[in-house]
Amino acid sequence: MKKIFLSVLFLSFWCSNAQQNLVQYVKPIIGTEKMGHTYPGATVPFGAVQLSPETDTISYEQNGKYNGEVYKYCAGYRYEDKTIVGFSHTHLSGTGHSDLGDFLIMPTQGKLQLNPGTASNPKSGYRSAFSHANETAEAGYYKVKLDDENILAEMTATTRVGMHQYTFQKSDESHIILDLMAGIYNYNDKNVWTYVRVVNDTLVTGYRQTNGWARTKTVYFAMTFSKPFTQYGQKNYETKQTYRGFWGKFNQTKNFPEIAGKQIRMYFDFKTDEAEKIKIKFAISPVSQENALQNMREEIKDWDFDKVKNQAQAIWNKELNKIKITAPDDIKVNFYTAMYHTFINPTVYTDVNSEYKGLDQGTHKADGFTNYSTFSLWDTYRALHPFFNIIQPSRNNDMVKSMLAHYDQSSLHMLPIWSHYANDNWCMPGYHSVSVIADAIIKGVYNGDQNEALKACVATAKHRDYEGIGYYMDLGYIPAEKSGISVSNTLEYAYDDWCIAQLAKKLNQTEIYNEFIKRSENWRNNFDPKTGFMKPKLADGTFKKEFDALSTNGQGFIEGNSWNYSFFAPHNPEALINLMGGKKLFASRLDTLFTMHLPDSFFAETEDITREGIIGGYVHGNEPAHHVAYFYNWTDQPWKTQAQVRKILNMQYKPAPDGLGGNDDCGQMSAWYIFSSLGFYPVAPGSDQYSLGSPLVNKAELTLENGKTFTVEAIKQSPKNVYVQKVLLDGKPVTDLFINHSAITNGSKVTFYMGPKPKMK
Amino acid sequence: MKKIFLSVLFLSFWCSNAQQNLVQYVKPIIGTEKMGHTYPGATVPFGAVQLSPETDTISYEQNGKYNGEVYKYCAGYRYEDKTIVGFSHTHLSGTGHSDLGDFLIMPTQGKLQLNPGTASNPKSGYRSAFSHANETAEAGYYKVKLDDENILAEMTATTRVGMHQYTFQKSDESHIILDLMAGIYNYNDKNVWTYVRVVNDTLVTGYRQTNGWARTKTVYFAMTFSKPFTQYGQKNYETKQTYRGFWGKFNQTKNFPEIAGKQIRMYFDFKTDEAEKIKIKFAISPVSQENALQNMREEIKDWDFDKVKNQAQAIWNKELNKIKITAPDDIKVNFYTAMYHTFINPTVYTDVNSEYKGLDQGTHKADGFTNYSTFSLWDTYRALHPFFNIIQPSRNNDMVKSMLAHYDQSSLHMLPIWSHYANDNWCMPGYHSVSVIADAIIKGVYNGDQNEALKACVATAKHRDYEGIGYYMDLGYIPAEKSGISVSNTLEYAYDDWCIAQLAKKLNQTEIYNEFIKRSENWRNNFDPKTGFMKPKLADGTFKKEFDALSTNGQGFIEGNSWNYSFFAPHNPEALINLMGGKKLFASRLDTLFTMHLPDSFFAETEDITREGIIGGYVHGNEPAHHVAYFYNWTDQPWKTQAQVRKILNMQYKPAPDGLGGNDDCGQMSAWYIFSSLGFYPVAPGSDQYSLGSPLVNKAELTLENGKTFTVEAIKQSPKNVYVQKVLLDGKPVTDLFINHSAITNGSKVTFYMGPKPKMK
Repeated sequence: MKKIFLSVLFLSFWCSNAQQNLVQYVKPIIGTEKMGHTYPGATVPFGAVQLSPETDTISYEQNGKYNGEVYKYCAGYRYEDKTIVGFSHTHLSGTGHSDLGDFLIMPTQGKLQLNPGTASNPKSGYRSAFSHANETAEAGYYKVKLDDENILAEMTATTRVGMHQYTFQKSDESHIILDLMAGIYNYNDKNVWTYVRVVNDTLVTGYRQTNGWARTKTVYFAMTFSKPFTQYGQKNYETKQTYRGFWGKFNQTKNFPEIAGKQIRMYFDFKTDEAEKIKIKFAISPVSQENALQNMREEIKDWDFDKVKNQAQAIWNKELNKIKITAPDDIKVNFYTAMYHTFINPTVYTDVNSEYKGLDQGTHKADGFTNYSTFSLWDTYRALHPFFNIIQPSRNNDMVKSMLAHYDQSSLHMLPIWSHYANDNWCMPGYHSVSVIADAIIKGVYNGDQNEALKACVATAKHRDYEGIGYYMDLGYIPAEKSGISVSNTLEYAYDDWCIAQLAKKLNQTEIYNEFIKRSENWRNNFDPKTGFMKPKLADGTFKKEFDALSTNGQGFIEGNSWNYSFFAPHNPEALINLMGGKKLFASRLDTLFTMHLPDSFFAETEDITREGIIGGYVHGNEPAHHVAYFYNWTDQPWKTQAQVRKILNMQYKPAPDGLGGNDDCGQMSAWYIFSSLGFYPVAPGSDQYSLGSPLVNKAELTLENGKTFTVEAIKQSPKNVYVQKVLLDGKPVTDLFINHSAITNGSKVTFYMGPKPKMK
Repeated sequence: MKKIFLSVLFLSFWCSNAQQNLVQYVKPIIGTEKMGHTYPGATVPFGAVQLSPETDTISYEQNGKYNGEVYKYCAGYRYEDKTIVGFSHTHLSGTGHSDLGDFLIMPTQGKLQLNPGTASNPKSGYRSAFSHANETAEAGYYKVKLDDENILAEMTATTRVGMHQYTFQKSDESHIILDLMAGIYNYNDKNVWTYVRVVNDTLVTGYRQTNGWARTKTVYFAMTFSKPFTQYGQKNYETKQTYRGFWGKFNQTKNFPEIAGKQIRMYFDFKTDEAEKIKIKFAISPVSQENALQNMREEIKDWDFDKVKNQAQAIWNKELNKIKITAPDDIKVNFYTAMYHTFINPTVYTDVNSEYKGLDQGTHKADGFTNYSTFSLWDTYRALHPFFNIIQPSRNNDMVKSMLAHYDQSSLHMLPIWSHYANDNWCMPGYHSVSVIADAIIKGVYNGDQNEALKACVATAKHRDYEGIGYYMDLGYIPAEKSGISVSNTLEYAYDDWCIAQLAKKLNQTEIYNEFIKRSENWRNNFDPKTGFMKPKLADGTFKKEFDALSTNGQGFIEGNSWNYSFFAPHNPEALINLMGGKKLFASRLDTLFTMHLPDSFFAETEDITREGIIGGYVHGNEPAHHVAYFYNWTDQPWKTQAQVRKILNMQYKPAPDGLGGNDDCGQMSAWYIFSSLGFYPVAPGSDQYSLGSPLVNKAELTLENGKTFTVEAIKQSPKNVYVQKVLLDGKPVTDLFINHSAITNGSKVTFYMGPKPKMK
């Protein structure tokens, strides 16, 4: 009796927490066409391995000149392409800069061809045609038929291990190629060194060292086959054969088990029966071959591909079930695909034994946290990390710890700008680590030493040698003569300084607060009251004469023009509104932004904006104006926030390969989607307030790590009923269009009442 | 009273074991001119750091073509040169192949010149003239005045740390250059990657990765200055400035603390007072920057240069005192300098925390032993390791363990051929690890698992793919068509196989014994009874027709001609004598070898033999005939061994910079000197017998690790009394001209009675 009772209890508990099948809504193919720069391959949440097909990996720099294709292939795969060259293990998701693509594997049959072939003649190499009809991309699983080879390729992953399954035809000449020359954004001297050990007839280990976006990057690997290879070999594409040592004692191109050089392609031969599956486990590590092997052994213990796939999808489903929404299926597809994309970056950069490579290129032990890399902070401080503070607080806590470890290891004594495989690539303006840290501390997510964290923020913000900070500190702005992105930097520093001030305030560090709250006003120094635009200012204090508010080139901005950047004072919209002439004028400027017609010349000068990616002059595909639609809330026309947010949600996110209007930017675009479709947005991370918009879902339940459930309900929500009539927080009216973070963590319920027409104030 | 009594006792004990000042006889300058290829710089016994001046480090490969100067600069320094370009931390001692020269440091004053300048115009760069009058080279200490800079440079070392002391003049422009492009045997793409972190104004860490003789080599470093530098900078000699990352945000050539690239020279600026000394501690590690720092901190705790120097010399003196000889001073100089040179290689390749990099490029912990690298086994199996079995048994035990660890880490499953910084450079024929291992086990020196050691030997000897072993196993010789060094390999494999057989016999492995004792007869297959020479044999079983017994080119030999190699059956001289027609004919062939006149053409075809390096046709400067002078002992004319040995001792070793007749070869030439001057030699390591020659010393006391003292006394020994009249072992006559190893370990005394004329049998 007792047993039965317990079982029933458990069942009942399980039912009330029943997981929905949400993986079904995830379409990793979204964003792989045109501007999204996402990849369709297999990964688990925040996985170190991203095992995904490459449709072009041979975009070598031509004689030192930029190859325009490089930008298109940030994620290695483009939906538009007709051929696949192989499957590699590391990928950036949604970035605007290319790198990675380590360890390309390709199965072939028949005569061995150890070169990648060309897209126009894939049969000239190991490249193969494929069609989307024979392709499946799911969360944690990717499948494609390689038409030229008639091989079915399937892949799945754990955090640190990619698992391949290739279904061959009967042949005495089946091959698996490991191309150690391939990489995304390749050029002649990118491969610094490659080392491979053929340990036995199923196990291969080694490393690959590159000089790319990550300047000093080494990825170690351990690779094992489900079946012994009959022979193996390599081709070393360095032609120089000199008297350096005595390697001539071995035939280095065949069955030499210790291989080293810069340009190496390897092959492994098999005899296969009809429909025989050969599987590969491919583990990576930032630290050592031994760690890679340990990662492999601990994460995948047997050869059951379906089990690994099912585990991967179960993990995804568990993560996705943290938010259950009521919405039409196409919105569910957008929503859960967005959620999928937010849970890809940053990526785990720690081995199972807690070791990782630090910024100092030394091996460190992550003591009580998981170390992460791939911090695209200029993008992700805006909505991704705030989203994590709600739905992944433990991970965001670890991410902050990773950023502070990076700081500790930095001989520059700086927090990360763009942390990338034990390097900083210094990409984009600002020092937005401080926003992520302040937001995490203010929202109670960071459990480390808060004063030490503040110290790191202050040290970073006072690094006079970095990107005009000295001028900024002395003059309150960066002279246009001194920097091509002087205005972007000044505006973003000012916001970051406000974050430091908020953190200092919380920690009762009055002196620091006073210093940085003052610095946070520096955005005013680039504001030209005559024109109402942010403008580059010269060292003599006058504004630069040549000025084009539409142009993105040479105006002091990056990934944005003055029209978009002029609204960049997220921490002080009231002051900005006053400077711009009051609420009415401000709202009409916003109207203009969202409705203007941009000339063709605007698109000619940039590679990362298309007509699809904009609404009027508002560029959603780039980040600087991500908060701007919410600025109507500070005017007397908040219904325009509601209308614009819904418009952006509908126009910029579509359940199709070309559904993303711009680079997903490591999940920032997707995080914007999730916040906005839930009806609220963190306009100024570092504040505990969210600004209300117009929910796209009918209902959402957010299961928090503290066990509470935060609920959003949108009564009468429909594509036409985009206007908020009334908002209740736990039954009490919300009159100011804000909710606090505590409302979420307390497990409150926000109820929006929607209607077809604006509710005037 | 009690106290005084104890002191007296102690004093008396100390006196009876009193160390002599033997460091005074060590002249590291010996061998630095002409052929010796030794270096004059500072090192401690078996030290990982060899801190020594470079007189030419810019011997770049010219357009992929061999630069003849490379061979001359194996040790970086040549006595003949007039300029010094700097002081670097790693050097090979006495080799015939070039590599290393990591981390070149040079002090300068005045206008900074970040290029090395030229020998003809040293002032065009940081190179400086020097003179031997202002130079001191001692064991563990090197000093030189840099004339162009008027800076006194001094250096000393611990095992893993080099210590520099530069005495500057008063100047606001004093510099210390760290040239990370420099290296011995440099070529355009030898530098694979360099990484440097300026941690603070006294500490710099990083690593240097090269593709040289050691194909995949990384040396990590930590460098600290006794005084903060006022500024630092670098010049990156890679000219490409592209869009790879955002390094443009920093001035990479000045005060950028994280430096990475392939071609970097750094400088550190100081203001100096008159005669101000700036000191540097420079630690290296095979594993990590962190380990390098730990090595530094544990080995040199303060800034007392003289203390470190005194410690280094005390350590040397302790090692040298293991053999106390009675002899004239010039012989003492030769003897103790030889002993110094035998205690340089192999070098410690373990950090103070016991970590080292293995052949698999992974980090390993040396469990209960010190790991060594730099095993020039083709040279050193002959006399150096046998010498260690007597005087450095603990270290040789560790060396055998290092070789077996190398085997364990080898994916080829091979013992080392030429182990070199976690690589094998596969230099020279044979698999002589097995000789070192068998000799150590047979002489009771190896305390590990002897059967596992035998397994490694057998596996290595059966590696069919390596250097003709398959042919050797199938045919009993290597066809000349298949290898340019077919005869050398067959002869040396046969000897090595005999070593395996001896080991198997000791371990009662009858099957292995039978197999390998049979293989050990294979040397007969290259013997041509018609001519009495070892000759290359074709696949069809006939001898190659074109044959020149004098030539070292294209005859199937390496570092030797048939005249020298035809005596290569050290393990079976009786059989060789029979094949050559009996004792008398054999002795007359030996006579011819030592007396023939070689034509000039002989010297034209080789770079490593000069007229000074030979006696008749006997090439002492190369190793294959090192045992040959002792072969008279197997004939009826053993006095000729005595005469020849003394002749070689006198002609090939002189107390002068050009005193070595050939490459010292990591101590093999020096070990030959020590054995021979003590009156005995290990003709066939793997046997426990030593063949007696003619002592050069009057007396020698060898203090063994087991506490016993082995004594050699040569009564009436003099330059004229080179002939042995009688030998007593502990008072009993020795009639067969052999002593056993046990005589040494038991602390016996061998007394030679010498005279001016041969004592006929």
